[in-house]
Amino acid sequence: MYGPGDVRVERREAPRIVEPTDAVIRVSAACVCGSDLWPYRGVEELPWPAPMGHEYAGIVEEVGAEVQTIEPGQFVVGSFWATDNTCEVCRSGYQSACVNRVPMGMLGAQADLLRVPLADGTLVATPDIPSDDLVPSLLAASDVLGTGWFGAVAAEAGPGKTVAVVGDGAVGLLAVLAVKQLGAERIIAMSRHDARQRLAREYGATDIVEQRGDAGVAAIKELTDGLGAHSVVEAVGTHESMTQAINATRPGGHVGFVGVAHGVAIEGMDLFWSLVHLHGGPAPVRRFLPELIDLIWNRQIDPGKVFDLELSLDEAAAGYRAMDQREAIKVLLRP
Amino acid sequence: MYGPGDVRVERREAPRIVEPTDAVIRVSAACVCGSDLWPYRGVEELPWPAPMGHEYAGIVEEVGAEVQTIEPGQFVVGSFWATDNTCEVCRSGYQSACVNRVPMGMLGAQADLLRVPLADGTLVATPDIPSDDLVPSLLAASDVLGTGWFGAVAAEAGPGKTVAVVGDGAVGLLAVLAVKQLGAERIIAMSRHDARQRLAREYGATDIVEQRGDAGVAAIKELTDGLGAHSVVEAVGTHESMTQAINATRPGGHVGFVGVAHGVAIEGMDLFWSLVHLHGGPAPVRRFLPELIDLIWNRQIDPGKVFDLELSLDEAAAGYRAMDQREAIKVLLRP
Repeated sequence: MYGPGDVRVERREAPRIVEPTDAVIRVSAACVCGSDLWPYRGVEELPWPAPMGHEYAGIVEEVGAEVQTIEPGQFVVGSFWATDNTCEVCRSGYQSACVNRVPMGMLGAQADLLRVPLADGTLVATPDIPSDDLVPSLLAASDVLGTGWFGAVAAEAGPGKTVAVVGDGAVGLLAVLAVKQLGAERIIAMSRHDARQRLAREYGATDIVEQRGDAGVAAIKELTDGLGAHSVVEAVGTHESMTQAINATRPGGHVGFVGVAHGVAIEGMDLFWSLVHLHGGPAPVRRFLPELIDLIWNRQIDPGKVFDLELSLDEAAAGYRAMDQREAIKVLLRP
Repeated sequence: MYGPGDVRVERREAPRIVEPTDAVIRVSAACVCGSDLWPYRGVEELPWPAPMGHEYAGIVEEVGAEVQTIEPGQFVVGSFWATDNTCEVCRSGYQSACVNRVPMGMLGAQADLLRVPLADGTLVATPDIPSDDLVPSLLAASDVLGTGWFGAVAAEAGPGKTVAVVGDGAVGLLAVLAVKQLGAERIIAMSRHDARQRLAREYGATDIVEQRGDAGVAAIKELTDGLGAHSVVEAVGTHESMTQAINATRPGGHVGFVGVAHGVAIEGMDLFWSLVHLHGGPAPVRRFLPELIDLIWNRQIDPGKVFDLELSLDEAAAGYRAMDQREAIKVLLRP
């Protein structure tokens, strides 16, 4: 990305092993993330030109001398952070704050080859080379599914609970899927977009709320005896969506927020009186990857459905455009 | 209180049973709360003149026709909210958000007689009339102990954890006591005041940090391998103290905040990247009262030590002054 709205596909020097803990993978599929739209829309500044992409699945080409668990030829999925998975923070389940983390976005996963640092701690191999129809779902595990899942876990979605999801992007839709898998009783998707509502219902939403802001909060309260949802997943990252999430949660309930916060300021007094739990941030996808890969491999979940547009890597610019214009939920790029 | 800094003790009409669920109690001891200082300092506006006080313990004089579990002659402790303790929110442990709650502060517990609405759901009787030396501790359970306890629970203090407490007022000191009772391994009290440091150590603090702000955060990190505390209790309620609490907590850790928030605005991006859990608000003291009364009755804890100045109710104005000037940690008023 050379600047807001300016995406170009270029030939760069092929990545190679730099550290003995690196792997290089041949990317089977990459994609455009909702968070890639922040710089695309000029809301976030990057050191231009910036390599883009932090979601990837592919086949290992080569590993460094110290890599022990990953081998050339394996099909692997990693998260948007390279992490050692051994430090105290990783061991507590917060790999996205690994003391040695490396942001994959800087390396540029929207490419045919990708260097992955800390390969042992970052990559999870599938049981075998997947059939082609599983690749989108495995790619989804790399970020959007893992992030939606973390949102659902952070919101403590579970049996007997009413859970609302704010945001109908890929993360929000996959949060619906996660909430369903975690056993929630009632799942309210907030969306005013037909195709997204349909996918939300397919993933397990029992109710759709089209209203936003205060009207959206009122609609959630009406569905919950005036109390608010037990759990709300916030998957947008704006001040309005965060406020909506907090206000739609009952006292003692849980807000799990995974939308990358832009311009959000939480008023202390409002949070104080709301008595909600608030937890979120960059998802520790690595924590969930083995379980998610297992669910996908056994075809218990189908997160790949969020990819409603598939392009070749050469057409990346059109992919950004489609997501920016909300013509596509999520764009898969095949190198 | 007639306005900021203007506290007067006056004869008012004696409270009496209004609703059949009311009780009237003869107050054995009341006190001045840190939160009473917000209007005293002109930071919070009240409808002047305002009856003051929401912490109380005393002997039941009279009960309404529908009161079933509380009887005249019992010694009782209640919280700063009158609550039904039967609604869905109460049953989930969040009595401070009871759908029928009544703020006790509006009724004025700094008095010799006090009407307590929803007596069955609000008051907890002690096993017998307590000896006089237990009264300060039982009074502390009414708010400051219950609030500090909630802060410790909200911060998920427990075995094996390093817990920091921001704030050395009565609530902060009793949060130290609570954290100790909950089994934390290491307890860091943040205080730059000799007498309060001593009491913190007596209550279980293993370390004292005198620095504040960024220096305070750095000191906590130095004590925790650079990671931050597992849990931090915020017991002040300012923007600085909340920021300090969030920044001193490790990723995945828990901030329990019980300081009544004034001028606090949490920057969404900072919270996002911190990956902490945030929970707090007005403490559901009623949830903890039976357990706290039990611990006090069996002399396992001595929260009454936070009262370092005892005055007669007539001297209430001097009590406010002493707390405002930080000459006293907490002032007990005997009617």
